[in-house]
Amino acid sequence: MALIVQKFGGTSVGSIERIEQVAEKVKKHREAGDDLVVVLSAMSGETNRLIDLAKQITDQPVPRELDVIVSTGEQVTIALLAMALMKRGVPAVSYTGNQVRILTDSAHNKARILQIDDQKIRADLKAGRVVVVAGFQGVDEHGNITTLGRGGSDTTGVALAAALKADECQIYTDVDGVYTTDPRVVPQARRLEKITFEEMLEMASLGSKVLQIRSVEFAGKYNVPLRVLHSFKEGPGTLITIDEEESMEQPIISGIAFNRDEAKLTIRGVPDTPGVAFKILGPISASNIEVDMIVQNVSHDNTTDFTFTVHRNEYEKAYAVLENTAREIGAREVSGDTKIAKVSIVGVGMRSHAGVASRMFEALAKESINIQMISTSEIKVSVVIEEKYLELAVRALHTAFELDAPARQSE
Amino acid sequence: MALIVQKFGGTSVGSIERIEQVAEKVKKHREAGDDLVVVLSAMSGETNRLIDLAKQITDQPVPRELDVIVSTGEQVTIALLAMALMKRGVPAVSYTGNQVRILTDSAHNKARILQIDDQKIRADLKAGRVVVVAGFQGVDEHGNITTLGRGGSDTTGVALAAALKADECQIYTDVDGVYTTDPRVVPQARRLEKITFEEMLEMASLGSKVLQIRSVEFAGKYNVPLRVLHSFKEGPGTLITIDEEESMEQPIISGIAFNRDEAKLTIRGVPDTPGVAFKILGPISASNIEVDMIVQNVSHDNTTDFTFTVHRNEYEKAYAVLENTAREIGAREVSGDTKIAKVSIVGVGMRSHAGVASRMFEALAKESINIQMISTSEIKVSVVIEEKYLELAVRALHTAFELDAPARQSE
Repeated sequence: MALIVQKFGGTSVGSIERIEQVAEKVKKHREAGDDLVVVLSAMSGETNRLIDLAKQITDQPVPRELDVIVSTGEQVTIALLAMALMKRGVPAVSYTGNQVRILTDSAHNKARILQIDDQKIRADLKAGRVVVVAGFQGVDEHGNITTLGRGGSDTTGVALAAALKADECQIYTDVDGVYTTDPRVVPQARRLEKITFEEMLEMASLGSKVLQIRSVEFAGKYNVPLRVLHSFKEGPGTLITIDEEESMEQPIISGIAFNRDEAKLTIRGVPDTPGVAFKILGPISASNIEVDMIVQNVSHDNTTDFTFTVHRNEYEKAYAVLENTAREIGAREVSGDTKIAKVSIVGVGMRSHAGVASRMFEALAKESINIQMISTSEIKVSVVIEEKYLELAVRALHTAFELDAPARQSE
Repeated sequence: MALIVQKFGGTSVGSIERIEQVAEKVKKHREAGDDLVVVLSAMSGETNRLIDLAKQITDQPVPRELDVIVSTGEQVTIALLAMALMKRGVPAVSYTGNQVRILTDSAHNKARILQIDDQKIRADLKAGRVVVVAGFQGVDEHGNITTLGRGGSDTTGVALAAALKADECQIYTDVDGVYTTDPRVVPQARRLEKITFEEMLEMASLGSKVLQIRSVEFAGKYNVPLRVLHSFKEGPGTLITIDEEESMEQPIISGIAFNRDEAKLTIRGVPDTPGVAFKILGPISASNIEVDMIVQNVSHDNTTDFTFTVHRNEYEKAYAVLENTAREIGAREVSGDTKIAKVSIVGVGMRSHAGVASRMFEALAKESINIQMISTSEIKVSVVIEEKYLELAVRALHTAFELDAPARQSE
């Protein structure tokens, strides 16, 4: 008999009909013999409705009071699901974040979980009840209601699974798992049976919006096996777990991630003196602009070229900061490009395989795609290319790394 | 500097605009120097919307879970008002029933308040904050959310006023006070400056739906001065208080109450043996039918006639029970009438004035209104008459007891 934490998002509980479907699903799992803790979001649209009410009062809602309002969304869904379960003869009880006691810090609207009291939940599980917990919310040491910020229900699920030492944390979503890449770009993309936390983090941060990054970090830190599944379709989903089988044969690359959210900025003819990188990036950072990739070319004639990427929304702002810097440090010119895309190959397998990057470059060269920037990490190689080649590049890499093959079976 | 508890109902916080108006009103009071605790209901319609959600899941919502859902209504309004106050520069903080700690018993959906922790509220008041508390809800000793049942926000206001030893509990409504009778029936009806708890209880239980009976009982028990005021119009309202001025001149009658909710049942030719009243009313009570007025005529020929009134909704049911009883005890016949009305004169003044009842009967006789039943208590005389004479009777009594005169001034 396993202990499973199941998390259903806003779309999965978006109507009474959906809640009834979730109840059916939970009932089936319960009858299979597992102990279940179910974490719910608010009905889709409800959180926005509540925020909108507050915004009608003031553009700058007081964070403490906003949490009092917004936390009511999950409070409604948990009780509705508990009722729907009891109607089906499944003993159930609902708990708000305060009732469980999910203790957080006092950073309203973006609180972090400090501690979870598992006493009540364990007693209920022992008594045969399904425990339905409000996601996304907690309580601080003074009894103030807090929320974890958008998407925080995933984190609640993982944190509960960690506190209860659950066998698995299942995140139910509107996709049936994590794919080798976006199926809208590559029809041959296939669902992964397994992926490591590290890979998932790289995939997620690169634009695969299946899971909240924070919940994956949390799951990795506490080694909570995480499974992504479809709310209303049957299927094994994708298990996200630590890499326990390094010795076994495994694919080098797990997936191809990409995004078109970035823009590139270049400053040329920078006098190559010590501390030049700080002189350039310091003012960018001071303007609260996040920098992703950074490339500095080798110097010639005692000057160097320096290129980095920022989010496209911050391109104009960054450009202005950079022009100012160029004048101050005597650089030759500033240029930029918003028509770029970033493509990455991700896989823990590349740790033990040489030549992965060159295989990537070869595949792109074959398609005559020019590489503008390169950056590498232990389990990822990213390149920046012209935006119009994005789909072509993703498909070429998906084939080159043999991801088009039928899914391998669960071990 | 006084400490005032102000309670605003669902209509008063029924929209963002209304909440802003309440905030203005609270701000003005605050600036006048009083310490304020504000108790709110849910936005009008919200409680029904929430109950309807639950009813879509099941006809018989689990009471504990229903309370979890329904309590979110006030949780939203308190935070919205706290925001609206802070926007106006008035320091404020919101508390749910659980956060204050309004401890109740575990009778979900109709819980009773056992104890209120005044520590947090006193600290906030001391710090200059307006404290906004969710009405209608509390928490039981196990941390379960409870609700006090419909209209319970008035009770929350009074209980808080009692716990805090507040100088006054102000109930803001859609009327500007308690009237001598329903102004729709008697245009000359006038607002009372003052009324005693006892009188208010008689008026309320007879159909003046200004205040919840339970909150008046509560206020009387703990001697909390209660004031009924209009939410959005200026005016002193009506103060409900203990009768401190018995020696002073005061009107004999404070008001005329009436209702048409009752029906009359008569059982004739009942063998007059000891315990006959119990034999007749026992089965009625066992059927959960509440009896209001009871009249037993003097016996003749060793039989007696017995008449009582029940709520009109229970007339059919009571009639069937009574017919059964008639067969069992050998009574002659059962008859009934739903076209009746009850009219009462209410006033603590009648304690010290003889002849009040006969003055009432005289006024009705002048209008040729036949009296079918009479019942009296220390501060009330009620009569049952034919329904069609109701308005005529109320107007005649209003004039006979000199209630048409202009309002007396506050002492």
